This record gives sequence, C-alpha cells and structure tokens, in this order.
Amino acid sequence: MQVGKPILYSYFRSSCSWRVRIALALKNIDYETVAVNLTKDGGQQFSEEFQALNPMKQVPALKIDGITISQSLAIIEYLEETRPTPRLLPQDPKKRAQVRMVSDLIASGIQPLQNLSVLKQVGQENQLTWAQQAITSGFNALEQTLQSTAGRFCVGDEVSMADLCLAPQVANADRFKVDLTPYPNISRINKSLLALEAFHVSHPCRQPDTPPELRA
Amino acid sequence: MQVGKPILYSYFRSSCSWRVRIALALKNIDYETVAVNLTKDGGQQFSEEFQALNPMKQVPALKIDGITISQSLAIIEYLEETRPTPRLLPQDPKKRAQVRMVSDLIASGIQPLQNLSVLKQVGQENQLTWAQQAITSGFNALEQTLQSTAGRFCVGDEVSMADLCLAPQVANADRFKVDLTPYPNISRINKSLLALEAFHVSHPCRQPDTPPELRA
Repeated sequence: MQVGKPILYSYFRSSCSWRVRIALALKNIDYETVAVNLTKDGGQQFSEEFQALNPMKQVPALKIDGITISQSLAIIEYLEETRPTPRLLPQDPKKRAQVRMVSDLIASGIQPLQNLSVLKQVGQENQLTWAQQAITSGFNALEQTLQSTAGRFCVGDEVSMADLCLAPQVANADRFKVDLTPYPNISRINKSLLALEAFHVSHPCRQPDTPPELRA
Repeated sequence: MQVGKPILYSYFRSSCSWRVRIALALKNIDYETVAVNLTKDGGQQFSEEFQALNPMKQVPALKIDGITISQSLAIIEYLEETRPTPRLLPQDPKKRAQVRMVSDLIASGIQPLQNLSVLKQVGQENQLTWAQQAITSGFNALEQTLQSTAGRFCVGDEVSMADLCLAPQVANADRFKVDLTPYPNISRINKSLLALEAFHVSHPCRQPDTPPELRA
C-alpha cells in the first residue's frame, strides 16, 4: 500500500533525522519533509499531534507504505528490506554484524547520551562537558573498532548504515567542539562521506527548515 | 568457521547481556559464559584484555564463528541471520519494522540513559531519580506504542527481539523501584515472558556469576 509520497518528520539539526535523510537520498526515494522544530514553541515534538505519531517525542518518524516508523535504525532497516538498491548492509552476515555493531555503538552508545532532552536534564552549565565526555569516550572505542573494520568507509569499501550514523555524529562532535585529532580513521571516513552527493543534499545546512543564517 | 563453542562475555545483572542470553536459549545454542564483573576490581570491563574484545568496555560481547561481536542487538541480528530457527523477527517487513522500533526504543531510548557508567557520572545522590525519570519517560512511550503493536507479546503473538529487550528493561525498572501500575501492557507482556523457559534459564538470578545471596 503506497499512499502518496513518504513523509519524513525531521529537524534539520537532528543527527538521527540526518541518518534517515541520507538513506532516502542514497536509495533515491522521493519524499516530503514535515519540519518538527525541537526548540520553537517549547518544542513542537511535544505537540499532541506529533506524540500520536511518535510517543517518544523525538524525530525522525517516517510515514511510508501506510505505516509510521520511528527510531532511525528501524527506519533504515525497513528501507533496506523494501528498497534494497543500493544496499546499505553487505551480503556477508559477518560484515553485516560489523555494520550493525558500529551503528549501534553510535546509536545506543553515544547519541542518546548527548541528545537534547538529556542535556536539558544535565543543566546549562554542565552541558558542554557532559556532551564532550560522551562523544570522546564513544569515539575512543569507535576509532579502535574502525581499525579492524574500516576500508574506505566504516566497514570495508562500501557505504553502509554505519556510515549513515558516523557523519551525523561527527557533526555533533563539531558542534560540541570535540577535538578530532586523536581520531584519524573517523576524520578520514567522515571527509570521504561528506564528498558524496547523498550526504551533501541531506546535510543539516541544506534542509527546508534550516534557518537562513545556517544555510550553506 | 565454527571454532568450538561460542563464548559469551556477560554480567549476571546486565540487561543487555540478558537480552543475548535469551536469544541463545531460545535458539538452543550451546555456549560458555565468561563472567565480566562490572563492579569488582573497579570494573573488570576496564581490563586491557576485555577492552581488546570490546573497546566500549561494556558487556555483552560474543565470540562466535571466528569473530567477536559487541552491541546486543547486533549480536541478536547475527544469530537470527545465521541460526534462523526459531525466528526472532517476523517475516512481514512492516512487522519487522515494529519489532526493531520497539527494540530500539528500549536499546537507544531507555537503557543507555540508566546504565552503570551514566549513573556514575550523575553522582550517588541523584542516581535513583535520574534512572526513574529515564525509565518512566521511556515506558510512557513504550506503553502507548504497545497499544498498537502488541498481541500476547510486544509485536503480535510471537516472541520477538522486542521481547528480549522488554523483560530485562522491566527488571531494571524493578531495581530502580519504578511503579509499574501505569503500564498494564508492559506488565502483562513481561509476566507472560517470565513464564517461558528461555527467559527463566537466562534470568540474572540463575547465572554462573550470580552471587549466592541473589540466587533464586
């Protein structure tokens, strides 16, 4: 049941939204964006309308094929199963395990500890240190993991779901002024990714809801 | 390449380790446990030997088929792809998306916010409130999500990866004295799960490293 174009509920700066935007771009899936501003009006994700779509009050959520899916990796896995070309998971089960391991390291091990709602709880004066600590600790592990999994990209030489997690997490690291010098693999892969069309068009500085002063 | 029995690096009380233990039990996979005590000797996960296995310094990690995988959901997906019976993901892509959505809601949206290393950072006097807040907020969303996905279990009437996340998260909720009264679906499904053999044998109170006073 394809009911019109897929609708992505997204916020330009949300790293989890960016993951999905890259997948949609790579797979050449035409979609509409509904912007959910996480800071305006006290946070549009708290509206009754949006909570009905995603009770977690987080972006992204994707309306597609008559269902609504939240959680970025669940969305990407669904896209992979229903729109398999180009593949975002390798064919070999051991390589797939590596892709999911790197993806989950970021999606469960780093991002949740430095997202907006946690930083609110931590309090204004501790936010930067807290976020830097979460990212640094995760990147130490990620850099070491990439030493055994990476080729040109996170796992071997093909772009995978892991790369869709990496570039947005590096953007968060930049925002929180994390020094990337100790992470040559992360930096190198990120640079290669940002040169790709799908990462370019989906970038936070080029979204319908990007404020003019942050556009590039 | 099957090199001897799989080895699970596990801690009896770790909810992420329990997820994998349930999968191994359901799929009837014989394995050896290497206990990694997260509190003894300042945390055995910080040993050089264990960091070489999992740079994130977290359990679980599984040595299997000549590789080492960390991140519980990546491990479970690998087991599902290589040992598909009984299935932990439904056949229908939309149902699979629901299973992964519920799994990720717990694995990215709840557990990371109340795990040992975060609670250490939060400080002794704030730990209980912090953990309760993370779990309550996540359970509010989970309960609402289950209203549309659940049958006897989290998604429909068959045990899935989502259930492997649910029961261990409810155990954490119990430890942190979260009132479960507002969550009838979560409570009901958890009760059904705990009655199953695979959840019973893998339970934290029945592991090789469970201290005698916590055994049941």
